[in-house]
Amino acid sequence: MAEHSVVFDLADQAVRVNTGTLLSEAAQLAGVEISQPCGGQGRCGRCAVQVVTGSARRRSTLRLSPEDIANGYVLACQSVVEGDIEVVVPPQEKIERRLTTDRTAAEVTVPTWYDFDRDQSIHRLNLTINPPSMDDQTDDWGRLQTTLRQHTGIGDLQVSLETLRKLSNVLREGDWTVTLILDSLSWDCANCPARLIDVLPGQVTEETPLWGVAIDIGTTTVTVWLVDLVTGEVRAQASEYNGQISRGEDVISRIIYSGKNGGSQHLRALVLETINELVERACKRVLADPKDIVKANIAGNSTMMHLFLGIPSTSIRLAPFVTVVNHIPTYLAGEVGLAIHPNATVDCLPGVASYVGADISAGVLSSGMDDTEKLTLFLDVGTNGETVLGSREWLVTCACSAGPAFEGAGVTYGMRATKGAIEEVWINSNTLEPTYRVIGGIKPRGLCGSGLISLLAEMFMTGVVDKGGHINTNVDSKRIREGEHGPEYVIAWADECAGGKDLVITYVDIDNLLRAKAAIYAGFSVLAESVGIPLESVEQVLIGGSFGKYINVEKAIQIGLLPDMPWERFKFLGNTSVRGAYFGLLSIQSRENIKAIASRMTYIELSADNTFYEAFMSALFLPHTDLNKFPSVEVMLEKNGNPIKTSVEKGG
Amino acid sequence: MAEHSVVFDLADQAVRVNTGTLLSEAAQLAGVEISQPCGGQGRCGRCAVQVVTGSARRRSTLRLSPEDIANGYVLACQSVVEGDIEVVVPPQEKIERRLTTDRTAAEVTVPTWYDFDRDQSIHRLNLTINPPSMDDQTDDWGRLQTTLRQHTGIGDLQVSLETLRKLSNVLREGDWTVTLILDSLSWDCANCPARLIDVLPGQVTEETPLWGVAIDIGTTTVTVWLVDLVTGEVRAQASEYNGQISRGEDVISRIIYSGKNGGSQHLRALVLETINELVERACKRVLADPKDIVKANIAGNSTMMHLFLGIPSTSIRLAPFVTVVNHIPTYLAGEVGLAIHPNATVDCLPGVASYVGADISAGVLSSGMDDTEKLTLFLDVGTNGETVLGSREWLVTCACSAGPAFEGAGVTYGMRATKGAIEEVWINSNTLEPTYRVIGGIKPRGLCGSGLISLLAEMFMTGVVDKGGHINTNVDSKRIREGEHGPEYVIAWADECAGGKDLVITYVDIDNLLRAKAAIYAGFSVLAESVGIPLESVEQVLIGGSFGKYINVEKAIQIGLLPDMPWERFKFLGNTSVRGAYFGLLSIQSRENIKAIASRMTYIELSADNTFYEAFMSALFLPHTDLNKFPSVEVMLEKNGNPIKTSVEKGG
Repeated sequence: MAEHSVVFDLADQAVRVNTGTLLSEAAQLAGVEISQPCGGQGRCGRCAVQVVTGSARRRSTLRLSPEDIANGYVLACQSVVEGDIEVVVPPQEKIERRLTTDRTAAEVTVPTWYDFDRDQSIHRLNLTINPPSMDDQTDDWGRLQTTLRQHTGIGDLQVSLETLRKLSNVLREGDWTVTLILDSLSWDCANCPARLIDVLPGQVTEETPLWGVAIDIGTTTVTVWLVDLVTGEVRAQASEYNGQISRGEDVISRIIYSGKNGGSQHLRALVLETINELVERACKRVLADPKDIVKANIAGNSTMMHLFLGIPSTSIRLAPFVTVVNHIPTYLAGEVGLAIHPNATVDCLPGVASYVGADISAGVLSSGMDDTEKLTLFLDVGTNGETVLGSREWLVTCACSAGPAFEGAGVTYGMRATKGAIEEVWINSNTLEPTYRVIGGIKPRGLCGSGLISLLAEMFMTGVVDKGGHINTNVDSKRIREGEHGPEYVIAWADECAGGKDLVITYVDIDNLLRAKAAIYAGFSVLAESVGIPLESVEQVLIGGSFGKYINVEKAIQIGLLPDMPWERFKFLGNTSVRGAYFGLLSIQSRENIKAIASRMTYIELSADNTFYEAFMSALFLPHTDLNKFPSVEVMLEKNGNPIKTSVEKGG
Repeated sequence: MAEHSVVFDLADQAVRVNTGTLLSEAAQLAGVEISQPCGGQGRCGRCAVQVVTGSARRRSTLRLSPEDIANGYVLACQSVVEGDIEVVVPPQEKIERRLTTDRTAAEVTVPTWYDFDRDQSIHRLNLTINPPSMDDQTDDWGRLQTTLRQHTGIGDLQVSLETLRKLSNVLREGDWTVTLILDSLSWDCANCPARLIDVLPGQVTEETPLWGVAIDIGTTTVTVWLVDLVTGEVRAQASEYNGQISRGEDVISRIIYSGKNGGSQHLRALVLETINELVERACKRVLADPKDIVKANIAGNSTMMHLFLGIPSTSIRLAPFVTVVNHIPTYLAGEVGLAIHPNATVDCLPGVASYVGADISAGVLSSGMDDTEKLTLFLDVGTNGETVLGSREWLVTCACSAGPAFEGAGVTYGMRATKGAIEEVWINSNTLEPTYRVIGGIKPRGLCGSGLISLLAEMFMTGVVDKGGHINTNVDSKRIREGEHGPEYVIAWADECAGGKDLVITYVDIDNLLRAKAAIYAGFSVLAESVGIPLESVEQVLIGGSFGKYINVEKAIQIGLLPDMPWERFKFLGNTSVRGAYFGLLSIQSRENIKAIASRMTYIELSADNTFYEAFMSALFLPHTDLNKFPSVEVMLEKNGNPIKTSVEKGG
């Protein structure tokens, strides 16, 4: 057998190994430590190294992107030496960066078509008015409107009583020079005159920010983007659990609670508190005053919108499942209870049906699927698993109740994707010992959605759980033990954790995750079936939802959450709902498009027949009852010695 | 000398008298008592009798209308026997009726052009909606709008958050049959969609009243008309002093008070209290609930409108005397603080200038002067003496501060024209003893505006006061005495009065009355002069103001309040402001006309030069410095032995 020289950049000298030696073995020989959390199965991608001279034969490139491959990256545990080579071992933090999407507040670029003057409904104008005299005793309000008409062509204005009350003082304080803030468009009334939001004494420079806010009211998480309407920039973001969560984790329990005496007012107060706190938090970051926010665009599912406005939601829960209102009129912040400028326009985006709300209309817009020829599947992976299938030509949609497990709720150590959340887990297939990555690099407090998917996939691929999600107690590992609520797997020991307690996952947790993923899978597969389109012909899968951005596709396929397709067809868009609200906030055209999307989407009611239920039951397994639907997972399981069969045999 | 037979219907037999005998003397002979409160000077008209056979020569017909004369009425004290005649003495109550305009709540007839279906902005509709089903999951609000569009062609609707909140329950409670109350027109936004005021479960019959309210906010008096919008009928009325009166009697003192800390809020609260109490009072009379009132039309002078809405009024008082707003946008009752349906449309009618407000725009409409070819002088005899001159072709207007004397304020025993108010006074020129008529026929409590005018005229014509309004203390009468504040005249002794104190008038009271009448006279005479029109060419004088209806023209001319013209040119219209608001409430066309009137009227600023002041000073006398302007009064004075000269001589 031929011997080859392998040079590692971190080692003092070259090592000589036979053809077919794994690069990871060569590194060990050379005294170079390469991290292999998954136990050398090619699943975690943490052992990626760069071959700079010569070549290595790759046995698996599952965890490498096409760019990685082009740049000579190989997985050390999956690549064998075939000639003399030189290898660079990237520093740990470089691997982290390669594997991790930037988690600092999603950078949102101002849309290229965005044109403030042309496409904004909010306008700020400086106006100098001729003062009254004995020869011209026109009233203040008439005088202001006349001057405005002369300068801008804008005729009549709507004005609140509060603004009329301050007008005379403002005009005189500013010595007849004032700044007007107008909203030129009311969404429910195309012919209505522009509305005067505020009048301020004197001039402001063009550089002074003019604030707007885009809000996504999720069942689990509320997200707020503070936007400078002059530049279009997102200047601050904040998100937090919806305060209503203490009164029910999913929309159904919220609706039931809202029907109790005072329940509706209580839920409304809770979500308002969350929103107002988030707005204040975002404002503090850029030293803005919430009272200077002059427009809010709000997206959320239909139940959230009803509860936010204090509109009864009972009919959403009971057949025939109708909302009170899908296209909500424009109201003022003061009317709805937002602690921003009391005259700020509050534009609640339009929804489609009881279970396909404004978050989806907004999401479809921000995904761009309404404007592409590609057959697209759009998934919003939140508490409600909403799915949209279609393209520029047509759009169908459905929803299923996924539950909040992927948002960290309903799972013992679940949490949102903030500091201290485990976002990825690798389990060594030999030792069953886990390795994990924590957001912020601190001691872990729990697991976020992507961490849970990763954990479940690893447990399944290493045989810690079987096809049915049951923890395999026959395996010899101190990580697997009998807990208070049955078998559990320990991800981190108490001394590693911020909470000072062992961080575990139980069967109840796993069951919640299985139900969530099964509902989502059943939703889009039934939708595709209903329009007679095989899932394989979907050209792109766009995934929204606040945690969606950080999902590991491979692992999501391994647990059967996503359909088994080439990875390049998947695209994670993050919180598409708040992004849609942001586009609507900035652009009249975008807002019109959202309205058009809401009107165009055909809603398919899943509860109408048994198809959904059957699909759901079949998907309650890892990855699915029918392994033929997941060929790539089958291959992987075969390669790993098919722990499924083992554990199923053991379990059976 | 020839003898004639005079037969009185009340006497047992005929009396025989010589040619030239006064009918009153003949009556005495016959034992028939005929009331002569004025002492037989032909000024009071109380001795009118009807000659049914033969004829009597009339020496004066001053107190008789052309109809009276045609019907054979003569004044017994002014008519002499020339042949055999038969005379009918009308019972006292018949004379009362002839002399008194019906004081029971002004009967307002529904305008003939009034067409509910065509010309109303408020609509009440019954709607039966197809309930939702699994095949039609349209939202409640969309479903209601679609059905409405199918039935009426009315497309989009504006809806308050409160109404949206109750919608789902109302639809289900009414088993998908509901009653909608809509306002199809927003005055400041012709293109805005109709607004849903309320939605009620089930049907209501066409007979169920639909309530609206017309309100006149006077500086002194607030008047409310409760209107059934289905029939157009005024179903109840109520009026009361404006609660703000305790904080200043005229607009200037109110404006000053409103500028103090908390003053504006206080004044707003006071007038709201008055209005809300009046509305409640009116509603009680017809067992209506104020919350069922769905539209309010409000007129008032500009200061009253500003104070009502809490808009600063300071600029009204200071040069260049501008209002904050003349054309007030439509607001909702809940916003402005009216205790009617919170979604009721509140339409504040448009004004012209600081001192010509919505009460005048409304007044001009209800007077009809904007639609006649006759050159018309319109006077609103209230706290502010507003005058409009013109016709269909053009309209000019001005205002002067008359003060509240004619509304009973600022005069020791002044009061509104309610029960217990002396409304007419006659003084016997021989004895100087007064006779009076009290509203309601009870013991007197004070004098209302018409009573004060009557009293002042009588005092002047009988020499109790001189040209300058000074009480003639040289005359021997126990009625004239030195009081606490100088000379005074006793109208009623303590034992005749409800208050148990002598009812008197002092020089201070008279001075206030003189200033009021001088301001009004100066106002319209300067206005006529400014457009180069002699007062004599005015074809009709229309008089508005809540007390105007009961003024005795003759006496008003005698004191120089009204120009000296043939009586038939005068027409008293009562409260033209509330009547205009009533027309605007019922009719879209009327409301458009009021808007057009407000835009058409040219405002003449009286404070701009000295002309007004000079005219005012000249008018501070009884009837005027220049007696040539009052030829009929001059004739009368001559006939009565010219007490003016006497008293002037005595005083001088």
